[in-house]
Amino acid sequence: MTWQLNPDRYFTPEPQQRKLARDLYSSVQHLPIVSPHGHVEAGLFTNPASTFGTPSDLLITSDHYVFRMLYSQGVPLEQLGLPDQTNLKAKIPDPREIWQVFANHFHLFRGTPTGNWLQHILIEFFAVTQAPNTSNAQEMYSHLEQQLQSAAFAPSALLERFRIETLCTTDAATDSLEAHQQLAHARVIRPTFRPDSLIQTHTSQWKTQLQILGQRCQLEITDYPTFIAGLEQRRVYFKQLGAVATDHDAPNPHTESLSAGSAMRLFAQVLRGHSSLEEHQRLNAHLLLEMARMSSEDGLVMQLHAGSHRNHNTALLHRFGANHGSDIPMAVDWTSGLRVLLEQFGNHPRFSLIAFTLDESTYGRELAPLAGHYPALKLGPPWWFFDSPKGIERYLDAVVETAGFYNLAGFNDDCRNFLSIPVRHDVWRRVTCNWLAGQVLYGTINRAEVDEIALLLAYQLAKRAYNL
Amino acid sequence: MTWQLNPDRYFTPEPQQRKLARDLYSSVQHLPIVSPHGHVEAGLFTNPASTFGTPSDLLITSDHYVFRMLYSQGVPLEQLGLPDQTNLKAKIPDPREIWQVFANHFHLFRGTPTGNWLQHILIEFFAVTQAPNTSNAQEMYSHLEQQLQSAAFAPSALLERFRIETLCTTDAATDSLEAHQQLAHARVIRPTFRPDSLIQTHTSQWKTQLQILGQRCQLEITDYPTFIAGLEQRRVYFKQLGAVATDHDAPNPHTESLSAGSAMRLFAQVLRGHSSLEEHQRLNAHLLLEMARMSSEDGLVMQLHAGSHRNHNTALLHRFGANHGSDIPMAVDWTSGLRVLLEQFGNHPRFSLIAFTLDESTYGRELAPLAGHYPALKLGPPWWFFDSPKGIERYLDAVVETAGFYNLAGFNDDCRNFLSIPVRHDVWRRVTCNWLAGQVLYGTINRAEVDEIALLLAYQLAKRAYNL
Amino acid sequence: MTWQLNPDRYFTPEPQQRKLARDLYSSVQHLPIVSPHGHVEAGLFTNPASTFGTPSDLLITSDHYVFRMLYSQGVPLEQLGLPDQTNLKAKIPDPREIWQVFANHFHLFRGTPTGNWLQHILIEFFAVTQAPNTSNAQEMYSHLEQQLQSAAFAPSALLERFRIETLCTTDAATDSLEAHQQLAHARVIRPTFRPDSLIQTHTSQWKTQLQILGQRCQLEITDYPTFIAGLEQRRVYFKQLGAVATDHDAPNPHTESLSAGSAMRLFAQVLRGHSSLEEHQRLNAHLLLEMARMSSEDGLVMQLHAGSHRNHNTALLHRFGANHGSDIPMAVDWTSGLRVLLEQFGNHPRFSLIAFTLDESTYGRELAPLAGHYPALKLGPPWWFFDSPKGIERYLDAVVETAGFYNLAGFNDDCRNFLSIPVRHDVWRRVTCNWLAGQVLYGTINRAEVDEIALLLAYQLAKRAYNL
Repeated sequence: MTWQLNPDRYFTPEPQQRKLARDLYSSVQHLPIVSPHGHVEAGLFTNPASTFGTPSDLLITSDHYVFRMLYSQGVPLEQLGLPDQTNLKAKIPDPREIWQVFANHFHLFRGTPTGNWLQHILIEFFAVTQAPNTSNAQEMYSHLEQQLQSAAFAPSALLERFRIETLCTTDAATDSLEAHQQLAHARVIRPTFRPDSLIQTHTSQWKTQLQILGQRCQLEITDYPTFIAGLEQRRVYFKQLGAVATDHDAPNPHTESLSAGSAMRLFAQVLRGHSSLEEHQRLNAHLLLEMARMSSEDGLVMQLHAGSHRNHNTALLHRFGANHGSDIPMAVDWTSGLRVLLEQFGNHPRFSLIAFTLDESTYGRELAPLAGHYPALKLGPPWWFFDSPKGIERYLDAVVETAGFYNLAGFNDDCRNFLSIPVRHDVWRRVTCNWLAGQVLYGTINRAEVDEIALLLAYQLAKRAYNL
Repeated sequence: MTWQLNPDRYFTPEPQQRKLARDLYSSVQHLPIVSPHGHVEAGLFTNPASTFGTPSDLLITSDHYVFRMLYSQGVPLEQLGLPDQTNLKAKIPDPREIWQVFANHFHLFRGTPTGNWLQHILIEFFAVTQAPNTSNAQEMYSHLEQQLQSAAFAPSALLERFRIETLCTTDAATDSLEAHQQLAHARVIRPTFRPDSLIQTHTSQWKTQLQILGQRCQLEITDYPTFIAGLEQRRVYFKQLGAVATDHDAPNPHTESLSAGSAMRLFAQVLRGHSSLEEHQRLNAHLLLEMARMSSEDGLVMQLHAGSHRNHNTALLHRFGANHGSDIPMAVDWTSGLRVLLEQFGNHPRFSLIAFTLDESTYGRELAPLAGHYPALKLGPPWWFFDSPKGIERYLDAVVETAGFYNLAGFNDDCRNFLSIPVRHDVWRRVTCNWLAGQVLYGTINRAEVDEIALLLAYQLAKRAYNL
Repeated sequence: MTWQLNPDRYFTPEPQQRKLARDLYSSVQHLPIVSPHGHVEAGLFTNPASTFGTPSDLLITSDHYVFRMLYSQGVPLEQLGLPDQTNLKAKIPDPREIWQVFANHFHLFRGTPTGNWLQHILIEFFAVTQAPNTSNAQEMYSHLEQQLQSAAFAPSALLERFRIETLCTTDAATDSLEAHQQLAHARVIRPTFRPDSLIQTHTSQWKTQLQILGQRCQLEITDYPTFIAGLEQRRVYFKQLGAVATDHDAPNPHTESLSAGSAMRLFAQVLRGHSSLEEHQRLNAHLLLEMARMSSEDGLVMQLHAGSHRNHNTALLHRFGANHGSDIPMAVDWTSGLRVLLEQFGNHPRFSLIAFTLDESTYGRELAPLAGHYPALKLGPPWWFFDSPKGIERYLDAVVETAGFYNLAGFNDDCRNFLSIPVRHDVWRRVTCNWLAGQVLYGTINRAEVDEIALLLAYQLAKRAYNL
């Protein structure tokens, strides 16, 4: 049996629903892609000679979804090409060996979105006809390698093939944005302002980041006002190069409002290195609020991703650094957590906050009621582990009844792997169309309205939410 | 295409399930309505000349489901007729203008229960044939206005048309219940004893309420025993006028058992205005337990609604008062929270507690296991944001497997808008019949038993739970 | 209408899905049963003359699922044969009276897994043709009684009839395991090491258990090292008699790592009876970590069941002892709770932990991400209240997308009632096959892979997870 994609994937088998789902999907399937949040490197698009590297770089070593699953079943990360920082002399395995290990374990991805994405990529973009396995691994590697070196696989060629209208990258607030300078005129590739390492004052890289901030801004950052000035100046720079949004990661969405005097005092203490963890946290919570204040002034949409316990596996953090696959979700209290921020800016006409959660129990309980009330708040799509067909259905089931469609921010693919972008948008479009078809047959959405809603979900909501 | 109601709404499209759902529904569709919990004014039924006011009063300004959604998309509340208490000279907009704003934004309600209820009301009761929109708004307003003034729309006429057998209102413990005095003989409209403002001793209106309590009871309330005597006296009065239940709102279901001495001391302090928030909270938690004790003696069913963070949006609270649309659910711990109350009264043969939650994750984890054990505890239906077709399905999926059907309290519509009552009961009846049909086909309920269960859910459980 | 089992129970009615579900089920239906976790007594299988007692013993008095539901609707536990320890002179009702009460209330089990299990047992094993009711109760009792005394109902005969390949019992760490000594050679019935009462040092039975431990090990337990030596010695003994696993109950999964000195000091204090609750808890949390350490050395799989608030109803605890039906689930934080344990042993190649939760919101948020990363962690199946058809579907929906199939531990029946074992495995096999059929039609699992996955879920995963 050939390995192939089910043309009706993500559609319910009941014939009436499947028919309507197909009709809706065919009306949105080929729309351009708006990708307002992701982790692709802008540099891929500045040099015509740039490539995605080897098949193993592209599909395994750079993708934490993939290597975390292999690790969970006993494959050491160093066998997958992740460099062990405590053993720098260790031989990095050949990409062919990495591919072999991956192929040997490909059955682990059965039933997972990661497996479905890989299947889509291999079949649709590389014309692979068999699932990877122990015996076909080397031949498949050669086949993939050859195609990745072809002109058709140049990043810019694929950007066009995939009909990507907007692609936002995620960039440190101190980034020079060199690639974006070259790309800014086309307004396709846009930077996103991510100041985590500057406003999480307790982290090890803070001092270094502060120094770079000073250099970039040609400012001597000696106190709170100069620090704030530096941040504001960087936001102006990001906006000039096309940025439409900021992005913030936080263990929880708690914010705090300090008086000007307290903020100055706490900052001075932190600068001298004399702060308790609690003081750091108070300052950080205040700085998150400052970000909201700045957004209300400069119009950059604020994205807040909360609820991940980063680097749960300390031993691996020491060996492989962050993003090694052990970020684990936690329960989050949005209702209390967002209170201060929303009290100050939730009714502000120019402020816009998009919230992302890893705690699905908060969709219906907290986030949809908040978004169905505060003008400033919109809900981001299912994030990370929940960007799955069932995850999207659970999200729609939980949020639409209270927040409607117009308080949603459409879809974000959040991809590191560029080839995943069209795949994940395709999943979103299929699942939303099937869900809408189900609602029509169930009688909660009128047939006459549903085409418009399918278009909203597939394309328009993202443009509106990010002012694109 | 005419705007119409899908006769098979809330039924799954799979033909066998739809057929059985239809059959079950036809057997309960026309049963009388028991509405043991809601917010309609008894006064509507004492005066033959009373009306529901303008279309905008009835369907927009009095319905927080409606105006919160409009507000979330940037419509100021004052434009919808809510009086701004900080700007009393502002012109209240004409009801026709309010209707126009609503019609301009009617698409916001797509896919929401609010939208479905409005559609049902407009089509079924007002014979409207188009969804409200910018251009038909004024004509539709005239049409609605005319009908609302007709004899067919007199509240008493509709009470009969809707086959409402019992309608419980919600009344402050200090309410004079004048309307109920006139209505008591018919035993259709019944008051419900809601003492929140008397037993939440930290709230601003407490002192005033205490004074009114004294007046109503012709008691000088100087200490804890006279206070308790006052509350007990009011319960007797409510019972005389037909009350079958009390109703309590609490941020969480925590109760506490104070010694007689401690209760007296704390009450004396609160009366003198010398209490910390913690002391208020301990006294409040004890007073909730006293309510359970009184219910175990006088047989009034105790309703407890917990888990709403009231008035999250402080700015709007100052401008528009409570119930302006920013009550937001929170996570609740029922297992620990109800412990003291259930230890004391959970095994009591005359005590009955009906619990309502806004934290759906507690349905299966906490409430169903508690109700499937304690004789005194029953589960209220999905509440507020979760009174939706999918919300009802999630509730049944989560609770029936552990608590069965006989520990449920049937349906409550909780309506402010009288016209919503038959609509929401119809949704409940359709969704429960469809769910039961699904269970029969899935083999977890026998065909021979299911008619009896449909009748229980549609009608009998509510009568049993409230001793009607 | 005869009372009968729906041959397509737990299959979705949609014809294509039902057909594929049937095909998959027919391939796993008759596989041997691996039951790695349960509460059947080993002694049933050592004496050829042993029986399951009366119908009421077997199906009512020994089954907390059954009597908790009856209690919730007002049936006193003493009427069901549970001995009231505060009224030892009270007459224990005749088993026929107990059966009558049960039959009078059989409708309470409608729509519950308990009802479905009872129906399966009565129809399939006892050839009953009517649901129990008030008028047929006594005749049915006679019928059941007669069959229970027949040779076909001897426990060993049923062990063979049910094709039980492995049956693990749950045994106190201090148990003499006499029955297991007789059964060990066949390697079918195996003990499980459950040290709760020894490592929960705050409980009333601790001192007694410690004494028994000393006797069993012929050790004088005077300090922490001799205590640890005793525990280790018992584990060796359990392994010799075929044990493959340990089992641990905890209100939450918190563990703590004490220094050797602190552990010795705390143990000495506890032994002298001079500890605060907090000191007990710290020692207990450390002892749980010691259990993980021992498992990493001796290879016994560690099972951790967390999140039950035991004996919520104190009044009943005093009258009827533990397991009277008021254990109530609570919210659990696995992400923080398991941190210390997983940091120390989560990457250990010989350690294996199987986690069970009563908080379904943690399936997708915490447990699947943890199991999809840590090599040592596997997920146990839905436990207790959630071992229901919908509970199994929710589990698969929530965990497979992140953890895949290979990080699952297959099915556990956790039965007290031996006759329930094949029934619950049948439910699991039907529901998993139907779920897989749905995934194939929905396009997330390939048709070519699904037979292998059905076999994994039905049989192989349990063998792998418990090294059987």
